[in-house]
Amino acid sequence: MNVMIMGMDGYIGWSLAMHLTGRGHSVSGIDNFSRRKNVAEIGSWSATPIKTMPERLKAYKEATGIDLTFYEGDLTHPDFTDLAISKEKPDCVIHLGEMPSAPYSMIDVHHCNYTQVNNIIGNNNILFAIKDHVPHCHLLKLGTMGEYGTPNVDIPEGFFEIEYKGRKDKLPFPRQPGSWYHLTKVHDSHNIIFGCKIWNLRSTDIMQGVVHGVQTDNMVNDDLLTRYDFDEVFGTALNRFCAQAVIGHELTPYGKGGQKRGYLALRDSMQCLTLALENPPDEGEYRVFNQFEECYRVNDLAEHVKKVASEYDLDAKIWNIPNPRMEQEENYYNPDMKHLPDLGFKPENSLDNELRITIPKLLQYKDRIEAKRSKIMPTIKWGK
Amino acid sequence: MNVMIMGMDGYIGWSLAMHLTGRGHSVSGIDNFSRRKNVAEIGSWSATPIKTMPERLKAYKEATGIDLTFYEGDLTHPDFTDLAISKEKPDCVIHLGEMPSAPYSMIDVHHCNYTQVNNIIGNNNILFAIKDHVPHCHLLKLGTMGEYGTPNVDIPEGFFEIEYKGRKDKLPFPRQPGSWYHLTKVHDSHNIIFGCKIWNLRSTDIMQGVVHGVQTDNMVNDDLLTRYDFDEVFGTALNRFCAQAVIGHELTPYGKGGQKRGYLALRDSMQCLTLALENPPDEGEYRVFNQFEECYRVNDLAEHVKKVASEYDLDAKIWNIPNPRMEQEENYYNPDMKHLPDLGFKPENSLDNELRITIPKLLQYKDRIEAKRSKIMPTIKWGK
Repeated sequence: MNVMIMGMDGYIGWSLAMHLTGRGHSVSGIDNFSRRKNVAEIGSWSATPIKTMPERLKAYKEATGIDLTFYEGDLTHPDFTDLAISKEKPDCVIHLGEMPSAPYSMIDVHHCNYTQVNNIIGNNNILFAIKDHVPHCHLLKLGTMGEYGTPNVDIPEGFFEIEYKGRKDKLPFPRQPGSWYHLTKVHDSHNIIFGCKIWNLRSTDIMQGVVHGVQTDNMVNDDLLTRYDFDEVFGTALNRFCAQAVIGHELTPYGKGGQKRGYLALRDSMQCLTLALENPPDEGEYRVFNQFEECYRVNDLAEHVKKVASEYDLDAKIWNIPNPRMEQEENYYNPDMKHLPDLGFKPENSLDNELRITIPKLLQYKDRIEAKRSKIMPTIKWGK
Repeated sequence: MNVMIMGMDGYIGWSLAMHLTGRGHSVSGIDNFSRRKNVAEIGSWSATPIKTMPERLKAYKEATGIDLTFYEGDLTHPDFTDLAISKEKPDCVIHLGEMPSAPYSMIDVHHCNYTQVNNIIGNNNILFAIKDHVPHCHLLKLGTMGEYGTPNVDIPEGFFEIEYKGRKDKLPFPRQPGSWYHLTKVHDSHNIIFGCKIWNLRSTDIMQGVVHGVQTDNMVNDDLLTRYDFDEVFGTALNRFCAQAVIGHELTPYGKGGQKRGYLALRDSMQCLTLALENPPDEGEYRVFNQFEECYRVNDLAEHVKKVASEYDLDAKIWNIPNPRMEQEENYYNPDMKHLPDLGFKPENSLDNELRITIPKLLQYKDRIEAKRSKIMPTIKWGK
């Protein structure tokens, strides 16, 4: 298929571009390098020394003979997005091109507004360009399990049947996101539902769990590595714990550490996104996939990192610190996941096995983590 | 109370500023005159010849001796919004300052994006300014009954108890808005819920039905009249029917005309907003009021206008035309409304009585409607 990846320079975007061309798809991509700029703004960098996009394209060509098409530009500019989509005429747009950090969106009013405009308007421009140029194109959109928040009930895949005062309807499951960033994904979902309804577009909205790991089978040399963030802003809890273990810092779960969420390995995320791509929805269909493989509490993650780190002679201690976020520190969590297994999804990478790849890779770049040691502990707070 | 009205130059904003000062509240307001500019952009104007803001302030002072404080500026500029709120230190911000037209938002990608940025960012800036300067301030925010769409169940006031797979929780009622504009109000609601949660703010989110009528008791002379839009973009169905009756044009319901919605008179909207203002929520509380008084099908509205118009020797014919929108043309509609009656709301202005005020007033300005006759019939379509 002819696939266009928005956010091709990102953590998942770069990995997926290689994965899909490896499967024979033709891949083009867009990025404005905002992730690199935003990470630099807060004074950090990727633990892996990632190459520039021109270097990446060249290294991939040399390793595989495959060409990737790349456009540098900003999705929030409607004319640019329109031009790129009208030129490439993709069968599927995989939209990963959003600002992905909750803490970044919580810095102040400017970062809140930047995040909301960047994500909402970029997504709108894609919807309009698909409508105008490739109305049969599948919009495969990256949302987050965080759209749902942590309700005290199981979490269906997007929709559920309700009964109220004796009447029934099937409605979108209520969303309770926990940051200005997570809110943008909820806003996007509502906008996409509307686009599918009025223009008969087709879309898969992926409610993805937290992705971890740094390596896929396509990264045959380190010039092809994807990024790995470990700072308080762009690093997930699991990434921070791995980085902390590598530099001999305590692992620091926030608060009680009972926050339970869904997780999956980077390579399994590739598998899921590929299944969604290769099994598109019908015209006019808006479908939601919950995408994760295992649920863990934050304390569980720290214990797993501690255990695997010890295999590499790293003695990691766990230190629960005051929580900078406003969230339940212990929560019920039992999301449904049927759609992806129905399409054949089989998780292949357990947390421990993935850690056995990640930690040695980070040890190789220990100096880069050590250099940004001061960027790991939290400073951005949710409350007043 | 010290009240700040965002959008004070608008249809409800100007009416409410006079109403609240009449009750002894101290009122300041903000507007960027975007409504006047947007209506001019599409080539129309208000049926009533509204005065400029300086003229309005002067006329109100002359009629009552009361001063209103006014700031011209744009809520999407965080520094401006911050400065105005920090200077006035309101006990309540009544936020009516958003782009209110569904068809305007549906014109093209630029109008969609303008609407979403204008409404979302203005609202965010208010939340941040309240948090920073007046954390006990009540945010009384104008949403719309259109946030809910038309589910096949009764519509609760914001929240409802769900049961899913044997567990229970109280969650926000799912929203299914029907235009890029209506989506902004849903996005605002989600953003406000989050602001209340993390910053302990207090807010009333008004799900208001369609407001009609052109006159309040404070409009003691025509220099104090509020605006009355009747074009396809800014005029509601009822306003268009009244204008059509006055100039001898057929009344034109869209499609089958079975679309059922909630309505209330402008003076009853004043009553409701005043009750919400004078009975604020607790700190940290986010509450939702459904605000309407009667439910009508669009065809019912046309019949009421035809009947009342005949009392003024106007012979109105009804002509159902192809529907430019994507919507159910016959729908179940039975929203709950308990909170406002519990606070003492008593609807005082029936549709027919309100029409007996509106139609003579429009006859007085018949030439202004006749001059924009070409702006009434629909040209903006929802589909491709």
